[in-house]
Amino acid sequence: MLSLILAESSLELVPKEIQNHNSVISHSKKLGKKPSEIILDNSWHFGAMKGILNEIKRGRPDLVHFSLLEATSIPLYYEKKISIYVHTINDKVIFIGDDVRLPKSYHRFIGLIEKLFSEKVVQSEGKNLLEIKDMTFNQLLQEIKPKRIIGLSVQGIPSTCENIVKKLTDDSCIVIGGFPKGHFSNEIKKRFEYTVNVGLTSLEAHVVISRILYEYEKTIFM
Amino acid sequence: MLSLILAESSLELVPKEIQNHNSVISHSKKLGKKPSEIILDNSWHFGAMKGILNEIKRGRPDLVHFSLLEATSIPLYYEKKISIYVHTINDKVIFIGDDVRLPKSYHRFIGLIEKLFSEKVVQSEGKNLLEIKDMTFNQLLQEIKPKRIIGLSVQGIPSTCENIVKKLTDDSCIVIGGFPKGHFSNEIKKRFEYTVNVGLTSLEAHVVISRILYEYEKTIFM
Repeated sequence: MLSLILAESSLELVPKEIQNHNSVISHSKKLGKKPSEIILDNSWHFGAMKGILNEIKRGRPDLVHFSLLEATSIPLYYEKKISIYVHTINDKVIFIGDDVRLPKSYHRFIGLIEKLFSEKVVQSEGKNLLEIKDMTFNQLLQEIKPKRIIGLSVQGIPSTCENIVKKLTDDSCIVIGGFPKGHFSNEIKKRFEYTVNVGLTSLEAHVVISRILYEYEKTIFM
Repeated sequence: MLSLILAESSLELVPKEIQNHNSVISHSKKLGKKPSEIILDNSWHFGAMKGILNEIKRGRPDLVHFSLLEATSIPLYYEKKISIYVHTINDKVIFIGDDVRLPKSYHRFIGLIEKLFSEKVVQSEGKNLLEIKDMTFNQLLQEIKPKRIIGLSVQGIPSTCENIVKKLTDDSCIVIGGFPKGHFSNEIKKRFEYTVNVGLTSLEAHVVISRILYEYEKTIFM
């Protein structure tokens, strides 16, 4: 099955070192949760995030939300022709079940992810919808064992979604950055067999995902 | 220029008849606004919305948010080859400027739209980013004067995005429902020259938008 990894994704709980910051405390109070239980979001925690390590890649769960909605709102997913993984910037991996309807409402999505971080698994009728594990990108690849790994990056060779899809077999893995700015770390980059860049301008992850999966879907269903 | 109308969109202020409902009052207090100043959202106001007219088509600003992000995060929009309009279920029309970076953060988007509803226009450096007017769907068409109007609906003739794009000229108008369930009202439907259905299963508005605009973009840039 085709795999999609959203890598180094901007999704994490508020880290310890800023849990005492005013913006975090007031936001967590509003939510009725502890600072350690809420997802880092730069639109609420901007002040607290100044100067933290890898700042530009962090605190954007909205991007992960959009990207997952793109990937899980399409026939390719409904027909179980794709496996979806979120690798986070802190080396956790979220396994997305094959029959999940993610909430479109942002605060419900965040509530679900906070529950996942706390309970490690979200089930419905005895089936895992979401599961989170401590796992590096490389460990995830060891589990998926894809034959071909294609990374999407503005640093890659210019191509089109149609041409990229020609390289895909059903045991390939597409890797897209789940962060707003910056590039893949070297540890991830070096695993790519091909690194390609779609579009003349830099495109957002959710746009790239929707286009590549749509082109791939055409090769399967049409 | 190609036009896109998100029609009968699920975007409105909380209507008068439910402004006194507990769920609305407590939510508006949290936001520090009056009930009349906040956007109807069924994930907060579900209880209040029970039984209101056209209930299933209302209170889903998140869908409008996604659909607009799809349409405004792509080269077609960056290169000013498309005009985008949001016609709402209450006959208002939002004119999206040609150089707008909509907030990806949901609560910032809602804040922006609430400001728009209150002030009627949102400007930056003397340029209109967003403007809202009282206007019916038909009045909007009179202003756009498209040569061809193509409606997307599961009630339409099955087609593919590629084939729909073949019908488009640069003075065509694509109309997609900006509501979660139900169908276009007759007043809107009867204006379509073609009514087409893409995909074997029902697709969400944001998916249809991303696919059609991507196919159209290919005919222009590639």
